[in-house]
Amino acid sequence: MALEDLGEFGLIDRIVARLGGAAARDITVPPGDDAAAWAVDAGFAVATVDTLAEGTHWRRDTMSFADVGWRAVATSISDLAAMGAEPRFLLISVELAPTVELADIDAFADGVAAACGAYGVRVAGGNVAGTAATSVHTTAFGTAVAASDGSPALLRRDAARPGDLVAVSGAPGASAAGLALIEAGRDTEPEAEPLVMAHRRPTARIELGRAAVAAGLACAIDVSDGLAQDLGHVARAAGVGIEVEADALPLHPSAIALLGVEHARELALRGGEDYELALTAPAATLGPLADGEASLTTIGRVVTEHPGEVVVLDSDGRRLAQPRGGWDQLRSARG
Amino acid sequence: MALEDLGEFGLIDRIVARLGGAAARDITVPPGDDAAAWAVDAGFAVATVDTLAEGTHWRRDTMSFADVGWRAVATSISDLAAMGAEPRFLLISVELAPTVELADIDAFADGVAAACGAYGVRVAGGNVAGTAATSVHTTAFGTAVAASDGSPALLRRDAARPGDLVAVSGAPGASAAGLALIEAGRDTEPEAEPLVMAHRRPTARIELGRAAVAAGLACAIDVSDGLAQDLGHVARAAGVGIEVEADALPLHPSAIALLGVEHARELALRGGEDYELALTAPAATLGPLADGEASLTTIGRVVTEHPGEVVVLDSDGRRLAQPRGGWDQLRSARG
Repeated sequence: MALEDLGEFGLIDRIVARLGGAAARDITVPPGDDAAAWAVDAGFAVATVDTLAEGTHWRRDTMSFADVGWRAVATSISDLAAMGAEPRFLLISVELAPTVELADIDAFADGVAAACGAYGVRVAGGNVAGTAATSVHTTAFGTAVAASDGSPALLRRDAARPGDLVAVSGAPGASAAGLALIEAGRDTEPEAEPLVMAHRRPTARIELGRAAVAAGLACAIDVSDGLAQDLGHVARAAGVGIEVEADALPLHPSAIALLGVEHARELALRGGEDYELALTAPAATLGPLADGEASLTTIGRVVTEHPGEVVVLDSDGRRLAQPRGGWDQLRSARG
Repeated sequence: MALEDLGEFGLIDRIVARLGGAAARDITVPPGDDAAAWAVDAGFAVATVDTLAEGTHWRRDTMSFADVGWRAVATSISDLAAMGAEPRFLLISVELAPTVELADIDAFADGVAAACGAYGVRVAGGNVAGTAATSVHTTAFGTAVAASDGSPALLRRDAARPGDLVAVSGAPGASAAGLALIEAGRDTEPEAEPLVMAHRRPTARIELGRAAVAAGLACAIDVSDGLAQDLGHVARAAGVGIEVEADALPLHPSAIALLGVEHARELALRGGEDYELALTAPAATLGPLADGEASLTTIGRVVTEHPGEVVVLDSDGRRLAQPRGGWDQLRSARG
């Protein structure tokens, strides 16, 4: 069957059916009305939107439509993870180029459903439009509660304080390493698999974000634009400097093996789309969290010097050449 | 200054500054973090997303970037109006083609700000990406409270009941008439102005939606895909038939004057993007609301016959030829 024959509303029905348990059928107003509605307790709403556009964020030769569906979910709820919020519902707005076929939509829905199942979120609504270029805009809604002092139990970029340690989850750069191997035609090499998966099926650190809030941390960001650039956002928001020890970066062993340590380190600092969390906290607060989270590595500290700036230090404490930025959604497309 | 020089984060800062009071700077977590957060009372969250893509929903020769900004707000909060919800916050996700210039973004932000001011909503966050084609995805968040029996005070498509009257606000078809005049190069004719404005600066019927909930109505839909097609959504969701009296349709006098009554009626039934509300309710419920709302016109009734179908009747009660559907976001782009 062709998409044109199905029409907008037939396609929406098909997607909702295909989502299975990932469609929020039991909420106050489920998919199918002008808007979705669900019951909320008093507290804090947390909301974010992110885009995956063909050509800018993915290509058909770098990921499947099922991968795009997974990543559309992971990329948005990662922003909720970085707030320490509990993700609940998604609205997914899709633009379909004329080249998209029904099988592509089915695969996309399967990827969305798989990620929803993995993260315990559901699709409450969305939109479908036929346009010149394919893209997915995913809005994620989560909740946060009030801390004992009445303030919202959330992680914020501007909460880094001099004296904090800086930690990161997982192996930043793994996604960029996976993409580099795909583009070099090396993605079928056995050791490439975890890196390719990191690119196509990234992990959103929901549990870590919530554990960080519970442990009393106040500051986090997700590493979606590259570790150095994202720490720069923290440094500017909080008015602090950040020092990163190059040798402390938790490089992926497969990235070292396949690309060499220098390239792996460069990707760890500049590669985007990892969706790991970078956190800052005093050692006494970070320690207990890190003990319970095997994935967390201390990589640096927050300082009063060079406010707004991230510097990377070698083993002798000397500044390495500044990595040139990270992922910029405008420059990448126009550069 | 070129957009490339400003970069993604510089552009976001510029947009937030340009939004002025339309940026939600005083919420729990304002624009600038991984996600936005705001305090909520216990009740119901209502959320919707809508798309305005260049080429599919607008062209640079049919509306300005300021118009696109206005309509991006109006189109999304219209879906909240159709639920009877109170709109509160927006997340705006923008894709920018390489041809978009900084002045276009400024104009877009001005249009968003104007609509936010008119409707009392604010922008809590968003996303910017450089891509192949320009589009805007607006997520709108509103709230609803519980009725005295604990059920959500919301208007739903599936709540139409046989015996209900059907009413519509404003003059459906005005937006399509405006577009027809723009495309015919007749938009500068004096009488065209209200129609052109209906297309470029449509009105979302927030107050009507809330008044309908307060008056005890249960069923509404916004007329964004064309009156006949949108009433068809109600008919199918509720499992009822709907009869519309052609002579009762509130045609815009300028549309009749400039396009003739037959064309004006066709556009009233099939034209999209009006963002008027269609409501159904028993006469005893609808009457008091209609008395207080000069814009409301009774156009038909809900029946048990031909469930799922909308029929249009002439003054002798005979069926007119069925209008062929309305706006379909897929077929329109691929047709």
